[in-house]
Amino acid sequence: MAVSQPAAPVTPCIRRRGEVLERAIYDAVLDQLREVGFGGLTMEGVAACARTGKAALYRRWDSKEELVVAALQHALPSFDDPPDHGSVRDDLLAMLRMMATQMSSPTGCAMQAVLGEGNRDRAFVDVVHKQVLEPRKRMLTAVIERAAERGEIRPAAPTVLVAEIGPAMIVQRFHTIGPPIPDDYVVSVVDDVVMPLLRP
Amino acid sequence: MAVSQPAAPVTPCIRRRGEVLERAIYDAVLDQLREVGFGGLTMEGVAACARTGKAALYRRWDSKEELVVAALQHALPSFDDPPDHGSVRDDLLAMLRMMATQMSSPTGCAMQAVLGEGNRDRAFVDVVHKQVLEPRKRMLTAVIERAAERGEIRPAAPTVLVAEIGPAMIVQRFHTIGPPIPDDYVVSVVDDVVMPLLRP
Repeated sequence: MAVSQPAAPVTPCIRRRGEVLERAIYDAVLDQLREVGFGGLTMEGVAACARTGKAALYRRWDSKEELVVAALQHALPSFDDPPDHGSVRDDLLAMLRMMATQMSSPTGCAMQAVLGEGNRDRAFVDVVHKQVLEPRKRMLTAVIERAAERGEIRPAAPTVLVAEIGPAMIVQRFHTIGPPIPDDYVVSVVDDVVMPLLRP
Repeated sequence: MAVSQPAAPVTPCIRRRGEVLERAIYDAVLDQLREVGFGGLTMEGVAACARTGKAALYRRWDSKEELVVAALQHALPSFDDPPDHGSVRDDLLAMLRMMATQMSSPTGCAMQAVLGEGNRDRAFVDVVHKQVLEPRKRMLTAVIERAAERGEIRPAAPTVLVAEIGPAMIVQRFHTIGPPIPDDYVVSVVDDVVMPLLRP
């Protein structure tokens, strides 16, 4: 009987099309960031690149800033689930390795371009910072604080400052020598710089 | 008598005009970098901004890459004369303070914009790196090595890596929280991070 059929497939179908379109838009944003940078990126350019209309973009995002933040959040796996190996060295290594890998990816390169142009659009960088970078920094700090609770590090260690070192050095390596970031560099940052500052 | 007059003032006058023009061109380059970034900067745009013709630019520099490097070198005081206070802490503090000040200046902001866009023009960043950043890194390493010779630091300290920490953290601070970089942040990087890694 018709009544027992599952509800009309229209909704799931539209929803799926919506997701596919959204992914195409996000891909277009990252392409445009790499090619023309944040300054050169326009809603028109993204729409053309994703083979859709400007209206499809404005239905979802009010501005190019919102759209770019959404695309970055979608593309960069979050650290919602920080590693917990029971050893601060292993946790830090896992997180910094993930950062190094992400940074060497096309998405990471696009994000660095956005941040590099940031001094021309401070408000936007603040948003990227708060929504994309801050969560990562909080996770690094959390990993170090968990180690402090286990008594694995010396109580007077400057944890907030130490949490900044790894990301800072990986980003600098990216900007000066360029990707990919070798694993032995990441290991060296952890073992020769960060750990000596934390150990009791 | 006319013969005893100093040689025609034509040459010095032209030379001075040349220097004044050159300075105007360099200022225009920095303005353009801040406004449209390295990607948006053109020889035409710089010429218009400096109220001169494109020919005046091409007589001096073959490409916009050469022009931008020249403008950055002109604007950023070099570290040809590294500080020598007889204490590695004081030397490092002096150099990192100078970096923090330079980075917060309009020129520093322009240079960061260039580097941030770098993943779109790797060859150019390599030139900026070699001609602008490398000399600074060499000076920091030299200051640390001089301290090693004085027996002021432990022999096994990872000097090359340690020389990277200060610049990396100052640049990251610039990109995340933005200029100006507070002096107590610079002091904290030296006293809580760099010095503990160097001390015997």
